[in-house]
Amino acid sequence: MSRKINEQYIIIVGCGRLGAYLANSLSERKENSVVVIDRKDTAFQRLKTSFSGFMVEADAIESEVLKNAKIQKADVLVATTNDDNTNIMIAQIAKSLFNVNHVIARLIDPSRERVYSELGIETISPTALSAIEIERLILEKGV
Amino acid sequence: MSRKINEQYIIIVGCGRLGAYLANSLSERKENSVVVIDRKDTAFQRLKTSFSGFMVEADAIESEVLKNAKIQKADVLVATTNDDNTNIMIAQIAKSLFNVNHVIARLIDPSRERVYSELGIETISPTALSAIEIERLILEKGV
Repeated sequence: MSRKINEQYIIIVGCGRLGAYLANSLSERKENSVVVIDRKDTAFQRLKTSFSGFMVEADAIESEVLKNAKIQKADVLVATTNDDNTNIMIAQIAKSLFNVNHVIARLIDPSRERVYSELGIETISPTALSAIEIERLILEKGV
Repeated sequence: MSRKINEQYIIIVGCGRLGAYLANSLSERKENSVVVIDRKDTAFQRLKTSFSGFMVEADAIESEVLKNAKIQKADVLVATTNDDNTNIMIAQIAKSLFNVNHVIARLIDPSRERVYSELGIETISPTALSAIEIERLILEKGV
């Protein structure tokens, strides 16, 4: 696989709303190669017809699946499933077993953030992000 | 009810992860009065013991419930349930029937944003917010 400067090889685990939104958006930037993995074939219906990446129907908890998705070459792995334990496990496999440089996990239960940070995994909490944004809107208008 | 300058009376519908996170956070700012409405009593377990607002166990789709929650005095209503139709309906009731000045609704399916904006309801999409934030992290580190 020849790679352009700044091109990033990105693996997204989970093609739910967040995974699909991200995959669609990243695939629109021509400089990225995107692979999306989901256990359910139907999940890929969330991808736009213009999606230019690869789809892998499999369980990303199996490291064989990640190997087939060329995780050794990945610059980034994002775990976006709707289960914190799955996201932690996949993020850890990516980081420890395959030395993926940049691992990001969706954090569903904000109270579990410490577990991730102790493992050196960057997290995104949709709940916290949204609450902070709503609070900003409320306080801004209230002043 | 006497009100201080800058005090806002805020009704939060839905005490799920987002509603509770927001309620806890807003209640920590002493200048706000917060009421949280949820159909399920157990949902209020997500609130911290330090939560200083009111809890109403009821279905906010009934305008009687909103009246009892003093919606006529509300500066802000935030609809955070996990159902877009419920959020739209409550947001509309708050806006049209009770003239609440600032109405914000959680948007679960980002493709439905137009419906909300046509109704003049401000939305927060946890999915879109998170995807944008992840993308920022990826692109920042990739450069």
